[in-house]
Amino acid sequence: MDAADFVTGFSRAIERKVIDVAIAATSADTSRGSMPIDPIVVHDSVHATLRMFLAPAAPTGWTATRQQQIDGRVVVNERLDRFQIGNGWLKLPVAGFFELDDAGLIPQWPSYCDTGSCARPLAALA
Amino acid sequence: MDAADFVTGFSRAIERKVIDVAIAATSADTSRGSMPIDPIVVHDSVHATLRMFLAPAAPTGWTATRQQQIDGRVVVNERLDRFQIGNGWLKLPVAGFFELDDAGLIPQWPSYCDTGSCARPLAALA
Repeated sequence: MDAADFVTGFSRAIERKVIDVAIAATSADTSRGSMPIDPIVVHDSVHATLRMFLAPAAPTGWTATRQQQIDGRVVVNERLDRFQIGNGWLKLPVAGFFELDDAGLIPQWPSYCDTGSCARPLAALA
Repeated sequence: MDAADFVTGFSRAIERKVIDVAIAATSADTSRGSMPIDPIVVHDSVHATLRMFLAPAAPTGWTATRQQQIDGRVVVNERLDRFQIGNGWLKLPVAGFFELDDAGLIPQWPSYCDTGSCARPLAALA
């Protein structure tokens, strides 16, 4: 499986909330580095965050409008992430960089998104 | 010149505030699509924004930590943009996608950055 397909599989696991599959794709030194949020450097914390993020009450959509492998093991995508909150959906444009390690797992995925522009719709939905 | 070199040249023109060179790199239907900000679709507005952005009083640094050509004419980079405000510098992590047109010019560069996390340092500097 090539790196882009691997990231697509990871994204589909996130969307479908298949937690074990998503976690299996991450490596032991996984750090989830969202730019607005400090990187999470401990593996257990990443898993706890994934489990919280993928809670059954919060359907999720990760729609990649562009995704391509660059630099050997790095996959970049532009996405519109959607999170169901209450009866509405928060839509968040994201640029993600997935850097696979030697084992083909995901140790980190720095993500660029704007917390400023989603604060108002988030408050309206909450 | 390949697309990545072209984007590097554009970035250096932005940094060095060589306005005519930066503007010459953009095409007639340029739209500056920063995700937190609505795209600017009129060429004159892009030029006005570039001129304002590149004003002599505001030294700028665009440091790409990663930059690569993808998808033929698309160049993606991860950057740490720095803007001098008063006596301090605002540092803003950005992911940028530069899509060159048939003429090899830049019609748009959607940029992903976080206005939320820079609001406080911006207020402290202003």
